[in-house]
Amino acid sequence: MSAPITTDIVIVGAGPVGLFAVFEAGLLKMRCHVVDALPQIGGQLSEIYPRKPIYDIPGFPDVLAQDLIDNLEKQIEPFHPTYSLGERVETVEKLEDGSFVVGTNEGTQIHAKAVCIAGGLGSFEPRKPPLENLADYEGGKGIQYMVKDPEKFRGRKVVIAGGGDSALDWCMYLADVAEELTLVHRNNGFRGAPDSAAKVEQLAQEGKINLLLSTNVTALNGDGQLASMEVTNKAKEVKTIEVDDFIPLFGLSPKLGPIGEWNLGIEKNQVEVDTEKFQTSTEGIFAIGDINTYPGKLKLILSGFHESALMAHAAFKYMNPGAKVNLKYTTVNGVSGF
Amino acid sequence: MSAPITTDIVIVGAGPVGLFAVFEAGLLKMRCHVVDALPQIGGQLSEIYPRKPIYDIPGFPDVLAQDLIDNLEKQIEPFHPTYSLGERVETVEKLEDGSFVVGTNEGTQIHAKAVCIAGGLGSFEPRKPPLENLADYEGGKGIQYMVKDPEKFRGRKVVIAGGGDSALDWCMYLADVAEELTLVHRNNGFRGAPDSAAKVEQLAQEGKINLLLSTNVTALNGDGQLASMEVTNKAKEVKTIEVDDFIPLFGLSPKLGPIGEWNLGIEKNQVEVDTEKFQTSTEGIFAIGDINTYPGKLKLILSGFHESALMAHAAFKYMNPGAKVNLKYTTVNGVSGF
Repeated sequence: MSAPITTDIVIVGAGPVGLFAVFEAGLLKMRCHVVDALPQIGGQLSEIYPRKPIYDIPGFPDVLAQDLIDNLEKQIEPFHPTYSLGERVETVEKLEDGSFVVGTNEGTQIHAKAVCIAGGLGSFEPRKPPLENLADYEGGKGIQYMVKDPEKFRGRKVVIAGGGDSALDWCMYLADVAEELTLVHRNNGFRGAPDSAAKVEQLAQEGKINLLLSTNVTALNGDGQLASMEVTNKAKEVKTIEVDDFIPLFGLSPKLGPIGEWNLGIEKNQVEVDTEKFQTSTEGIFAIGDINTYPGKLKLILSGFHESALMAHAAFKYMNPGAKVNLKYTTVNGVSGF
Repeated sequence: MSAPITTDIVIVGAGPVGLFAVFEAGLLKMRCHVVDALPQIGGQLSEIYPRKPIYDIPGFPDVLAQDLIDNLEKQIEPFHPTYSLGERVETVEKLEDGSFVVGTNEGTQIHAKAVCIAGGLGSFEPRKPPLENLADYEGGKGIQYMVKDPEKFRGRKVVIAGGGDSALDWCMYLADVAEELTLVHRNNGFRGAPDSAAKVEQLAQEGKINLLLSTNVTALNGDGQLASMEVTNKAKEVKTIEVDDFIPLFGLSPKLGPIGEWNLGIEKNQVEVDTEKFQTSTEGIFAIGDINTYPGKLKLILSGFHESALMAHAAFKYMNPGAKVNLKYTTVNGVSGF
């Protein structure tokens, strides 16, 4: 185990709100170290819907999710945040002087004056289809629950399952990439955007994808590597499909994860905070963005941005008791980094 | 007096926060009518510092104030807000059914189901120099307190007074426009950005402007139209300057204005609100942005943006008692206007 990293605020979560917290902390001259279980910054925006437009960020009539992350990365650059990516925060210990040691599953230790949880949905897990031998094909043997690199599917036989936006979007995208693409959906209609549903139906009519509605995947077969699957429709007709890659896109099931064991006030999987400091039930541990809850809470990115500003002021006061914080307007002197 | 305008929410103030409130209201299918005392939208950003970069809007490493307003105008376009610009809100009356009639100084009457005050600093007034016959030259007779159209000063003899950013910025800008430009400042050093101060001093050294430090304007002369002024320095030396236009830029003094008489809870010139609905002490009247106060309040544009979202949800519940609000994510279905 290497020497602990030291910083002012350890931020748990590198989504848009965690990133902007680096900016608000930086304006008050506090340095940040950011930890995220995902291998890259951006949280859900980069992982789940990088190419989707967002319409409700103030000042952007529309912005692609990944572009918003790229902009935020540029915006916080002057404050040189440090990162532990691909590591999951596991433990927190409050020391006698009020500072904290946070530990990750990789053995990294971070010593910080305050902790800010910006964990979004938590360390979320994909919802999995109820198939017996699913685990046999996980870990690169034919099943994946997220599309990270669409090019990986070029020239391959792909089956997507699901009826929401992710399933529809990837279906449209991969129609031109995969050698053969099948969309399996248990119902007759889609939950996703009517627009996308219409396009997917058109792709099916043009013979560019196979569309199996009112159908479930009922068995997976292969010898070490997924080779085929059995699908069953409402009329109980069973069919076998050859498949290289199976992508079940049934959404994500948020799990609070180890943070749930930090003895913080929790309500329905969310961390309770006040609306003045966005502080949890433990002084010095703050929570901002989708992971927190308070009266009136809306799970909007823009709310997390606001919360990060108030959190930063409160964290400053926590680590500098008695000091006066001055709200500085960047229009006057710009942003001076570290 | 014409027939009253009817709308869902009357928004008092067309600054960035008032404009974004149109968006958040629109997502919940509420229409808005916006009133502002200024002749154009944008509030302080368009009126006081249109060409200044802002660095603390999330997702914008930097953005010019006017560009942010232009973006917001585009973002709310689908919701077709209506405006009464150049009119000051004076009166509010709550009707028995819980709706409101808001009246302006121009006699316009707006009947709305809810009122949202997004009044920024209030209806602010420029701070004026203590000169006896100041009023004689106001109203187009030689004195103006804001620069609206810099081209108006082309080829003219201009005197700016002040030592803050506005004075420095306009000094730099008008150096190339005015025939003769003088900057009068009562102190020896400037309050504005050191950068700008250095540039202004350089302009003076190059003979492009006249810089009179430790000097006050002590008298104004002219026959109906300002023609000359007397300035006095610390050594009590008196000098007379020819002048077509005198622009005292001593900052703005915020005045709550008529809203102060609406019987709302007020603390230090700000309207008290809760942090769940951003509602004032009168049910159905909300206040967002710089004009409100609550524990932890930071006067940031981004806080006003967040407040506008929670206000919209609360206003929806106020005018649709018992109805359920669904938080809609624009990433799924985009924005559908009216």
